[in-house]
Amino acid sequence: MSDDVILRPTVNSDRLWADLMAIGEITDPDRPYTRRSFTPLFEEGRAFLREKFEAFGAQVKLDAAGNMIARLEGSDPQLGAIAIGSHSDTVPSGGRFDGVAGVIAGLEILRAIAESGWKPRHPIEIIDFLAEEPSDFGLSCVGSRGMTGQLDGEMLAMVDSGGRVLSNALEEVGGDTATLPSALREDIAAFLELHIEQGPVLEDRGVDIGVVGTIVAIRRIEVAFEGRAAHAGTTPMDLRQDAAVAGAATLVKIRETAERFAADKDSYFVATVGIVEVKPGGSNVVPRTCRLVIDARSDKPEILDRFQEIIDSESVAAAASARVERKSYEVLSDGVPAHCDEELQQHIRVASEELGYASLDLPSGAGHDAAFMARICPVAMVFIPCLGGHSHTPVEWSDQAEVTAGTEVLLRVVERIDLAGG
Amino acid sequence: MSDDVILRPTVNSDRLWADLMAIGEITDPDRPYTRRSFTPLFEEGRAFLREKFEAFGAQVKLDAAGNMIARLEGSDPQLGAIAIGSHSDTVPSGGRFDGVAGVIAGLEILRAIAESGWKPRHPIEIIDFLAEEPSDFGLSCVGSRGMTGQLDGEMLAMVDSGGRVLSNALEEVGGDTATLPSALREDIAAFLELHIEQGPVLEDRGVDIGVVGTIVAIRRIEVAFEGRAAHAGTTPMDLRQDAAVAGAATLVKIRETAERFAADKDSYFVATVGIVEVKPGGSNVVPRTCRLVIDARSDKPEILDRFQEIIDSESVAAAASARVERKSYEVLSDGVPAHCDEELQQHIRVASEELGYASLDLPSGAGHDAAFMARICPVAMVFIPCLGGHSHTPVEWSDQAEVTAGTEVLLRVVERIDLAGG
Repeated sequence: MSDDVILRPTVNSDRLWADLMAIGEITDPDRPYTRRSFTPLFEEGRAFLREKFEAFGAQVKLDAAGNMIARLEGSDPQLGAIAIGSHSDTVPSGGRFDGVAGVIAGLEILRAIAESGWKPRHPIEIIDFLAEEPSDFGLSCVGSRGMTGQLDGEMLAMVDSGGRVLSNALEEVGGDTATLPSALREDIAAFLELHIEQGPVLEDRGVDIGVVGTIVAIRRIEVAFEGRAAHAGTTPMDLRQDAAVAGAATLVKIRETAERFAADKDSYFVATVGIVEVKPGGSNVVPRTCRLVIDARSDKPEILDRFQEIIDSESVAAAASARVERKSYEVLSDGVPAHCDEELQQHIRVASEELGYASLDLPSGAGHDAAFMARICPVAMVFIPCLGGHSHTPVEWSDQAEVTAGTEVLLRVVERIDLAGG
Repeated sequence: MSDDVILRPTVNSDRLWADLMAIGEITDPDRPYTRRSFTPLFEEGRAFLREKFEAFGAQVKLDAAGNMIARLEGSDPQLGAIAIGSHSDTVPSGGRFDGVAGVIAGLEILRAIAESGWKPRHPIEIIDFLAEEPSDFGLSCVGSRGMTGQLDGEMLAMVDSGGRVLSNALEEVGGDTATLPSALREDIAAFLELHIEQGPVLEDRGVDIGVVGTIVAIRRIEVAFEGRAAHAGTTPMDLRQDAAVAGAATLVKIRETAERFAADKDSYFVATVGIVEVKPGGSNVVPRTCRLVIDARSDKPEILDRFQEIIDSESVAAAASARVERKSYEVLSDGVPAHCDEELQQHIRVASEELGYASLDLPSGAGHDAAFMARICPVAMVFIPCLGGHSHTPVEWSDQAEVTAGTEVLLRVVERIDLAGG
């Protein structure tokens, strides 16, 4: 063991933090922090990363799905890669952590390994996935879809507001649609992703490290009511067909049901009505239509099914009570939950404990590249706290100590996987 | 009485109907039926009316507030005028009855009187009030405000979307802001207005004539909630500050309270939430703000006060329950109810009975020029049924027989007032 101790790589917290802050400066100056995929600023961010990786001898390449991959070879050519990754693109006016913190953590880990002289048995890869955030094409996780064989022709034909086709945009950033199947990987032994929690739980409980068990399934449901527009002054209450009344009653039931489901601590559940549209929208007109879009998430699809059934009947009842028609009840999109590997989760728990960090098992309520990667290899995610749970906003923040803790845990997990076998 | 019987004027139903349909053809062809005040089409409508009035010898003039007044002198110069009026302007894509049916009814009554040889003791006037519908300047009842001394400098300074000032627009249609006080009338003995009900009550009950008791007061209240935008996937239900939940719960309470108030048959009450705004409005974002605009109407201001108090505390409770701030609760506009003259109402009831029409006392839930006229003279309104209660839409409809019945009743009321005395 003495040899191992001497060569143990060490995270350089100040260097890690400096790189994270530096790539944050690569932003649309008028909308900090904005580094959208498929833009020159995104390419500038990648050039920054490439230079950092090549400075210590990592090989950098782009795969056919536009993912940038930095790699150090391992000592055992029979072993698959231990991959660490996230994304360097942002939402418009986003923050300096969502995504890129996981890429910079990987950079520091790979650099620390290279500098330490430790030669892992597995190849180690750091992946900057292309376009995790929904780009102007309206598609999220372009790169991780591509790496897991989930990027199909229909998606590649999507068009942005400027008329650009996704397949062309992909080629412009260095991808290659002709050889897209080559991006599908079968040689990854484990995938690890560090990400800010984007929620308030770790901060609230004073915990350093979140061990993600499941990345939830997201189901979006649209409910539309149609009544009759009428004069707000002359139409008696008992003759109205007010669609907004049906919508409001349904929204109240959605909230009540979501709170009841969320109270069951054996599963994760949240539901949100983020879109409420009432038309025609005149102060003196009884509303004719009301449209709600529900976003429901759980680690268990059967819970989403039960929720969907309850709101189906609640919305029918609300429509009947308001004498309007429940015009539609449609699932707009649906997904399956992605489960993190139990052994990898245990590595994170033990690594945290060894390093003196408190950890907490929790689900991820947000989608991540790791959810796609779970289709091709064992995955795990390390969450770090973020201020007030804020994300997708310029005030998004994690402290240097928090980012460092997550990176140290992730490096220790890489060591544990490499030592453990496989 | 034999002399009176011989000279009794008679409504010509076909002529009345032909004129009503003819002026309906004066419309923006792309948006039937649209004849907006302060437009060339509006002037064309007035030219049509002027020609009809002058054809049988009525004097036609414009007052300083832009109202067009057709007049037949009476036999007793000591008596004030019996005035009949409404408005010839429409909302965009409105109907062929709201407003103009009352003007054409007045035209037919004045013409029938002129042709009959009957010389009333009172002068008879037919008034086409300027801009009853909210014009692009955002002000309703411009002409009846002017005739009752309620058109002030602040209103005259209002600007439309094209940058035109109302005072200039008023001059362009023949008004005169310099002599505006001259429009204020003190010589009107009675004001009568025929209008479609714009609601479903008369049709529902199979009644020909509505006898309006009160034109309701309208109070508009804005309620705004502010919570915290948050990630729809990662923010646990019990840590959310969802403004839409507070808004929906308040809307449900508004409806419940309105139904309870409306059930009290001693008074009129309706309340509507026609504007619901939820922001930022992303399907995956917990709403930060929600804004409702309430339109509450009653014949009794104390009922509006009570309603306002109840919704004040209900909205505070809804905000507390959703852990958001009830940011504002503001009265945007308020009015007083206008009461119709009891003697004139009785004339309408008796005239209806004499002519074999069923009548029903009811309040007006919509505002009308008559509500302003009530400040300077006794007023009454005759409502006629309209199909399905529809109004402010191209499908707005009353049958020829319904318009004729209302006109016949109104003519009989003029006779009764003139015969009754002073």
